[in-house]
Amino acid sequence: MSSQIIKEITAANDDYRASFANGGLPLPPARKLAIVACMDARLDPARILGLQNGDAHVIRNAGGRSKDALRSIIISQQLLGTEEVLIIHHTDCGMLTFSDSQLHQILQERFNGNDVKDIDFLPFSDLQQSVRDDVEFLRASKVVSPKIRISGWIYEVETGRIRPVSN
Amino acid sequence: MSSQIIKEITAANDDYRASFANGGLPLPPARKLAIVACMDARLDPARILGLQNGDAHVIRNAGGRSKDALRSIIISQQLLGTEEVLIIHHTDCGMLTFSDSQLHQILQERFNGNDVKDIDFLPFSDLQQSVRDDVEFLRASKVVSPKIRISGWIYEVETGRIRPVSN
Repeated sequence: MSSQIIKEITAANDDYRASFANGGLPLPPARKLAIVACMDARLDPARILGLQNGDAHVIRNAGGRSKDALRSIIISQQLLGTEEVLIIHHTDCGMLTFSDSQLHQILQERFNGNDVKDIDFLPFSDLQQSVRDDVEFLRASKVVSPKIRISGWIYEVETGRIRPVSN
Repeated sequence: MSSQIIKEITAANDDYRASFANGGLPLPPARKLAIVACMDARLDPARILGLQNGDAHVIRNAGGRSKDALRSIIISQQLLGTEEVLIIHHTDCGMLTFSDSQLHQILQERFNGNDVKDIDFLPFSDLQQSVRDDVEFLRASKVVSPKIRISGWIYEVETGRIRPVSN
């Protein structure tokens, strides 16, 4: 099965590797940095922050929630030496548009059975507060060193700007 | 507290938004696509696949594990209409270098207490198998429609190439 998208991305990858020149980069991030950002299609952490290949771990999930990123953050810090975390949520986020119970009801209606009844989908109703909550979650974690610098940001999908929320 | 990195990324963002011209993109991904990829600093999904702003959800975690991405995938498919998933693991992955018990022991030694004893860090010992496992995990999920196209890939950090594992 080869979808149209697969034809397109493999063609794009042919172009990418024709000029590829970063084959010797080490595994640990050069700038000792980890980004936690939303999966949103309009938010590209590398482009908006000027990251180069090899600079930073980029962890992304629905909302950019730090609780959901904890497994990855522990690996990033304890095994690969990152020392700073930037948490980036954004304006017009889908997480502002539904509640946990609404999504569970949708799943119940669309599928004949539901094996994810216990999932917390981590939606939020206040964008700034969600950033603060996620910074605090990491600061309060027993497995994140107090030496790790953690800051929280909002990306404006309308303007391309990042603005600080919690530093 | 403003680290050197924060000065650098805010300066880079000033440059980005000076030429920003994508302010009117809609929330749902234009290509109805979701990527699940590793957080590795050398793997930039947008660059290696030729993605433009607004094209695709990008979910990233340590290893690019689909089990850890399920919350985000459900939101992507049920609320934002994506119809295809690409799972991308990569050569020289950190997940090949440790075991769950080793990392739990590191946490026990470095922190005075450990509130994440139940976390499965999802390491793997066989790169191709990990991709197949993650494709199968989604295909077997009761909350992923059989209409969703799911494929698995390995990105070669040495060459810039993606190669198919499971299509």
